[in-house]
Amino acid sequence: MGKEKNTDNLSPEKIRKIRLKEERARLTDFQNKTAEAKLPVLVLVEGWAAAGKGSLIGKAIQQMDPRFYNVASLEVIREEDKRKPFLWRYFTQIPENGKFVFMDSGWFSQYADELLSKEADPQTCVKHLDSILSFERQLVDNGYLLVKVFLNISKEEQSKRQKALLGDEDTGWRVSTSDLEQNRRYKEYQETFNSCIAKTDRTYAPWHIIDGANKKDAELAFLQILNAEIEKALANRPGADSPLLKDHFPKNAVTPLADIPLADCVTTDKTYKSELKRLQKELRHLHNRLYRKGIPVIIAYEGWDAAGKGGNIKRLTESLDPRGYTVHPIASPLPPEKNRHYLWRFYNRLPRTGHIAIFDRTWYGRVMVERLEGFCSEKDWQRAFLEMNEFERDLTDWGAVVIKFWVQIDKDTQLQRFTDRQNTPEKQWKITDEDWRNREKWDLYEVAINEMLEKTSTTFAPWYILESVDKQYARIKALKIVIAELKKALGN
Amino acid sequence: MGKEKNTDNLSPEKIRKIRLKEERARLTDFQNKTAEAKLPVLVLVEGWAAAGKGSLIGKAIQQMDPRFYNVASLEVIREEDKRKPFLWRYFTQIPENGKFVFMDSGWFSQYADELLSKEADPQTCVKHLDSILSFERQLVDNGYLLVKVFLNISKEEQSKRQKALLGDEDTGWRVSTSDLEQNRRYKEYQETFNSCIAKTDRTYAPWHIIDGANKKDAELAFLQILNAEIEKALANRPGADSPLLKDHFPKNAVTPLADIPLADCVTTDKTYKSELKRLQKELRHLHNRLYRKGIPVIIAYEGWDAAGKGGNIKRLTESLDPRGYTVHPIASPLPPEKNRHYLWRFYNRLPRTGHIAIFDRTWYGRVMVERLEGFCSEKDWQRAFLEMNEFERDLTDWGAVVIKFWVQIDKDTQLQRFTDRQNTPEKQWKITDEDWRNREKWDLYEVAINEMLEKTSTTFAPWYILESVDKQYARIKALKIVIAELKKALGN
Repeated sequence: MGKEKNTDNLSPEKIRKIRLKEERARLTDFQNKTAEAKLPVLVLVEGWAAAGKGSLIGKAIQQMDPRFYNVASLEVIREEDKRKPFLWRYFTQIPENGKFVFMDSGWFSQYADELLSKEADPQTCVKHLDSILSFERQLVDNGYLLVKVFLNISKEEQSKRQKALLGDEDTGWRVSTSDLEQNRRYKEYQETFNSCIAKTDRTYAPWHIIDGANKKDAELAFLQILNAEIEKALANRPGADSPLLKDHFPKNAVTPLADIPLADCVTTDKTYKSELKRLQKELRHLHNRLYRKGIPVIIAYEGWDAAGKGGNIKRLTESLDPRGYTVHPIASPLPPEKNRHYLWRFYNRLPRTGHIAIFDRTWYGRVMVERLEGFCSEKDWQRAFLEMNEFERDLTDWGAVVIKFWVQIDKDTQLQRFTDRQNTPEKQWKITDEDWRNREKWDLYEVAINEMLEKTSTTFAPWYILESVDKQYARIKALKIVIAELKKALGN
Repeated sequence: MGKEKNTDNLSPEKIRKIRLKEERARLTDFQNKTAEAKLPVLVLVEGWAAAGKGSLIGKAIQQMDPRFYNVASLEVIREEDKRKPFLWRYFTQIPENGKFVFMDSGWFSQYADELLSKEADPQTCVKHLDSILSFERQLVDNGYLLVKVFLNISKEEQSKRQKALLGDEDTGWRVSTSDLEQNRRYKEYQETFNSCIAKTDRTYAPWHIIDGANKKDAELAFLQILNAEIEKALANRPGADSPLLKDHFPKNAVTPLADIPLADCVTTDKTYKSELKRLQKELRHLHNRLYRKGIPVIIAYEGWDAAGKGGNIKRLTESLDPRGYTVHPIASPLPPEKNRHYLWRFYNRLPRTGHIAIFDRTWYGRVMVERLEGFCSEKDWQRAFLEMNEFERDLTDWGAVVIKFWVQIDKDTQLQRFTDRQNTPEKQWKITDEDWRNREKWDLYEVAINEMLEKTSTTFAPWYILESVDKQYARIKALKIVIAELKKALGN
């Protein structure tokens, strides 16, 4: 803590003034230290309507340089938010390393509102709590400082403030009907807020209740909490270390890659042509139905270099309306991606309801290339199995169809295709030194991939193997699996 | 053109098949050449409802690698679009250098729909045409290949297709009421489309009409147009070279920087304190009214290093609700920004209606640092004066208040502040070698700035000088100007 002035014999107002000055200066200082330490800070400001959340954030950022923070106003749920999974509007707003994001209302109040809503589906509420808990734990585990405050005012105080706002036409619009409802049903809201706080209070992401009755006191309390949390985090960033059964996701038995028979997986040219046509036509029809029913679809492709991912994807998309799907080729992350939770860039590529997103390489890079090249720590990739399962669970909870393909070939086939690419001028751009380097690590990759398949083949998002020594066979198989999964989702 | 097969004595279907194959291969080839040449390609696909725009785009992208293109479906105008200026939804979608964007419907059909709408305001239509023309010209001038096609079908054909779509519940949703209206009022739409084509057909961005009666013929025509345009652009990218009166924006007389008296622009501490409080309070009230009336505000700060921009901005924002404003510090562009039209990153930072965006440094970097450091060609920055005027005209046409501040100090004051920063440990991060290097170029900057002030002080977005040797004086002056401009916009 900084040096504190001697405040004996001073009035409470004077003391508060001195403390405020100290805390403001500390925050200015901490923003620079936070940037140096590359610590990302997410400050969630929740509380009653008219409690003064906005002005609290306003006071804090006045001490900071605009390069170091963002304010995210998430009170209003927009059209686009409704077409994305629950966490999307929050996950896409998380700060970069070294920066602050102040969220004015977030997942906490959305969840509480759902509980209080008359039309809420209890099962959805249960799922959203799961999402919140894993989200907060993941943030902390991935190096984020998460500061959660709740700004509290009494029923009488809220009513008084709302009346004052409504008295002026320029501020009256700020009081929504649901704000007024909050005051009418104050007791009920209070119980729900309390229960939500209890459910989401964790040692690694504790709640701080701030009394909002007096604005200056609230500001001081907020700055003190913020500064204390930053100071602690700068000294020590231990991760959540939550007592979880890390393998608690149901898994399918998985055949190790080396034992997958490939030789018999062939198709004739004639069968291929007729099957392809028939299946593509069927897929096109299903795509229309998906769109109408608003079901989002995520198809993830992983596989050895030169296994035939690109061509396989092409056969899926060939018959689809381009306005309803997007193919996302995943390369190395750009700086704004690298400086955030590794799932952030995938959240930013999620489809809208009714749309299909196809990923050519995926978030599983975390437990393959990042693991093998040392781009993340062992702890990071060990933890990632659970994190990715949670990510996919959130997607399927949202109603998405998640299909994961591992495109499999043997080592000889890869060599043959590499050589072929090198010898064909139009294909040379497809083969790089990196491909050859990766090939040298085949056995290490095989260990990593087997572990990945075993730990992330969940009931809700299983892996499918596409035997692709005969690429035509793999394409037909992929189409059939996609069609079967879509039919299941459409209920026939 | 590639080698063409001898097609004597072949049926038209056979010939088409051969041509299609050739054109598809050419497009695959061109995508790589386009990437190498860093040519950005924007393909605008317009046409009648049910003409087959989507499938046309689908066929083209099948020949391409997903890394090289994006499809933007812009038929539906969303909630967010309506809170941004007319060009925003198009400008934010322009491709990076070396990449393609296929737009399914765009500014053309939005403009035509506005003309055909019964509630359309004629003056808005006139402004939008201005925006379209400057947008297209700017794209070409900034190195973009713009390919515009219109897919044409007859009234009977459209009616037949719509009936077929409506016959199946999985495709019926695709036919909107406005699509059906198009068929009912076919003749009227046709006249409007023709008139819009005539108004926007330019040598540097010509329209191509494609007959959509037969899908295969349409695909072939589309690929031929696309390939021919790419081939031409790869050989020669001359810019639009449009015959415009480059100085046709009304300008205010501007005092050269060196002649601006600074010495008398001072304020006492006492006046400053009371004025600041009073003005900030007034601004807070105006902010509420702006929000309610949905007026967007853009405040642009430029000025010498150490002139006091940051502190000035802080006094503006101090009293504002952080949910209603954002400060955008502008540094060097990131790669995705550098690889696009230089105004793209500012389009991405425009406020919503009712919000305030404050820019700490702005698009004027083009005619200051980029000009002086040679980051763009002379032709580029010469052209930029007009482009930035057009940008600001589009903003004010949208209803935005645009306020531009030049924060002025003299050379001695800068030296004093630089030295002070260097000698004060907490301020040292604010002073860099670059600041000293820029200072050496003071005279060159002065020439550039005087030209900028002269050429971009328009009636709709004038520059205001903030004399900032006395920073307190400059802050009070900025607040007064902002308040006056906001009052004007609010009608009192």
